[in-house]
Amino acid sequence: MIVQPPPGTRDFLPEDMRKREYVISKIRSIFEKYGFEPLETPAFEYAEVLEGKYGEEEKLIYKFTDKGGRRLALRYDLTVPLARVVARFAELPKPFKRYHISRVWRHEKKQKGRYREFWQCDADIVGAKSLVADAEILALARDVMLNLGFKNFKILINSRKVLRGIAKYVGAAGKEIELCRAIDKLEKIGVEGVKEDMRKRGFSNKVIEKTIELIGCKSIDEIKCIEKIEEGKEGLEELLRLQEYLDCFGVEEKYYRFDFCLARGLDYYTGPIFEIKVEEPKIGSLAGGGRYDNLIGLFAKQSIPATGISFGIERIIDVMNELGMIKQEKPLTIFVAYATLDVIKDAIKIAEMVRKNGFRATMYYDKAKLKKQLEYADKIGAKLAIIVGKKEIENKEVRVKDMEKREEFTVKIKELKEFLESFN
Amino acid sequence: MIVQPPPGTRDFLPEDMRKREYVISKIRSIFEKYGFEPLETPAFEYAEVLEGKYGEEEKLIYKFTDKGGRRLALRYDLTVPLARVVARFAELPKPFKRYHISRVWRHEKKQKGRYREFWQCDADIVGAKSLVADAEILALARDVMLNLGFKNFKILINSRKVLRGIAKYVGAAGKEIELCRAIDKLEKIGVEGVKEDMRKRGFSNKVIEKTIELIGCKSIDEIKCIEKIEEGKEGLEELLRLQEYLDCFGVEEKYYRFDFCLARGLDYYTGPIFEIKVEEPKIGSLAGGGRYDNLIGLFAKQSIPATGISFGIERIIDVMNELGMIKQEKPLTIFVAYATLDVIKDAIKIAEMVRKNGFRATMYYDKAKLKKQLEYADKIGAKLAIIVGKKEIENKEVRVKDMEKREEFTVKIKELKEFLESFN
Repeated sequence: MIVQPPPGTRDFLPEDMRKREYVISKIRSIFEKYGFEPLETPAFEYAEVLEGKYGEEEKLIYKFTDKGGRRLALRYDLTVPLARVVARFAELPKPFKRYHISRVWRHEKKQKGRYREFWQCDADIVGAKSLVADAEILALARDVMLNLGFKNFKILINSRKVLRGIAKYVGAAGKEIELCRAIDKLEKIGVEGVKEDMRKRGFSNKVIEKTIELIGCKSIDEIKCIEKIEEGKEGLEELLRLQEYLDCFGVEEKYYRFDFCLARGLDYYTGPIFEIKVEEPKIGSLAGGGRYDNLIGLFAKQSIPATGISFGIERIIDVMNELGMIKQEKPLTIFVAYATLDVIKDAIKIAEMVRKNGFRATMYYDKAKLKKQLEYADKIGAKLAIIVGKKEIENKEVRVKDMEKREEFTVKIKELKEFLESFN
Repeated sequence: MIVQPPPGTRDFLPEDMRKREYVISKIRSIFEKYGFEPLETPAFEYAEVLEGKYGEEEKLIYKFTDKGGRRLALRYDLTVPLARVVARFAELPKPFKRYHISRVWRHEKKQKGRYREFWQCDADIVGAKSLVADAEILALARDVMLNLGFKNFKILINSRKVLRGIAKYVGAAGKEIELCRAIDKLEKIGVEGVKEDMRKRGFSNKVIEKTIELIGCKSIDEIKCIEKIEEGKEGLEELLRLQEYLDCFGVEEKYYRFDFCLARGLDYYTGPIFEIKVEEPKIGSLAGGGRYDNLIGLFAKQSIPATGISFGIERIIDVMNELGMIKQEKPLTIFVAYATLDVIKDAIKIAEMVRKNGFRATMYYDKAKLKKQLEYADKIGAKLAIIVGKKEIENKEVRVKDMEKREEFTVKIKELKEFLESFN
């Protein structure tokens, strides 16, 4: 019988789970602080809800047909389900700020650090067209990173309007999406790879060279030429305005920079786009997002602007693990042992009393020597072991063993609570 | 474009989510107190991992084939994945106590209160054959129910050994599983329905009548006749021993009773089985479980005993909602408004300062009259609104409005923190 989970999926044992919960709670507390509200949606959607939203990545969607003949699909991200929910519940007050921490599925190629089932942590503001909303998303991103303990991170910022400006400026009007898709691969396949990819997409050498030159610009001043294009002008103005708002939010300049190479893979972005990277280790982006003013309109009867960010907690956990940043506080566990089987009922009563006093307690159930029970207590990381023995019970006492310091104490049962509290 | 989720699945808006989180946190805190550790597994498994485990319910499993031609299936419960995990990680210290709060999928017929995607809250003890483990599961169940605020609940207890004893006693040896499956429908289809079902399964009238008579017994004394069958004897002895342990765990008799009609639908149970019901409203069981000593052996190279319980949080939430038992504490939210658009940057700074001081703050992003902003603050349940105006900012002040009492205060910015704290 198979004991492995399907490729690209994982079992999370308790130690992993505690780490994940640590990271998620750090992220969630910032989401809450900024006034975002929790939301959940089904794991699968009607396939057509997801189709036509993700561009070239659509082929990674898991699709299936249910017994009723419905075409269904496992959700690919948390953004398209949000768009559907906003359209479904028109009465939601806008701006609607929601967070959603849950799993998504993508049939990715097998590759280290790539999973087919993984968790996303998203925060989105729906129904606000002002760049104040985008700036708030970035302020939140800064707080999330700081709260997780990152000091050397950088938020890269670009704008789809700037990219469309570039496309038109270099003479590739009408092929803006293709251009974005090619540029998006820069980090994975390098400059030469992008050139090759653009060639395959039918861009001329002149367009390719000019594009590569422009996306390499290091500042808004350098790329000012695209102001000749209406969208380019608008995009650059928006970036400058965004910068002003970031300043109001107290987002220090050391935490972000404009990067015209940043394209983001998904088709649905329309305005500012962003990604967060850490300097060390080099591992790709830990979060990404941007403005998508047209996506919700595909579901709702009216156009509804939106912006948001998604944290990739798998990578975040990997990086934090590597850097030893996860402070895992295991709950204090008290193990209750019976010295001989004839006092197991007393041990049960002591364990129950300990729990009633507010502690976390567990025991060994089957017949076993004391030594084996204490070895087990060690393995599960119990900090204290209460040893229930016949003689001690007669004296209304128990022995308490400090599993770390290997010290042992004899304690009156009626004084046990106070004694245990002194260890907490 | 479709805005509905697929049939049997649900969107959870923030208000629902807060209720779910309340209930889950109440359950989880008891799981933790008894020393259970968190675990998570993938949403889908290889189909053959699930096949042959659920008896007649197997037809409800969602199955599909991935792009690599693998036959996969959405998990149907959290128990079979646990069995696989225990077999996969032989090094896990035993007894292994894990809890798992996550979603499962069943292609149920459309029916009120039946979902195709729903959450289970499971706690299981793996690697303990002693009935102390079963008793602990029931003590935990009692604490979960009390912690949720239930007073009138009853844990129904039976044993698969007793049921097999009955089967043999009435002359239906070899058809024990069929008999259990028929009895399991009692509550749904009534006595006459069960008789009819048994007839269809080929049981004789004599067997049917004797079975119905025996499962109607109200006490262990009444059903003592089945002691002539080895398994029946063992089953009854186990129930009596379980009762002794329940007494040690302080599980009061008012919280449980033996019920020989209880059969549980799934095939994999081997020993004690149990379900929790509330008297009011009549809604079926809120939790169920039992011992399954052979399931893990299907995956592992050795037989590993196990027992556990699963809480159906959908029903629990429905019942608690109906009885007004959910105390939903919305976090204190502070809304920051700008009186005129020219001070929006000051409003951003105030909001950021408020957050730095530990509060939850949000604002309106787009251009809007103050009245509209405050209406929005009301809709999202903000308790306080800070109004940033040009004149006030010049005086280093803001106005603070108590949204419930409709009182307004003028507060110095440097005294804002203390002022807000007085509302917390």
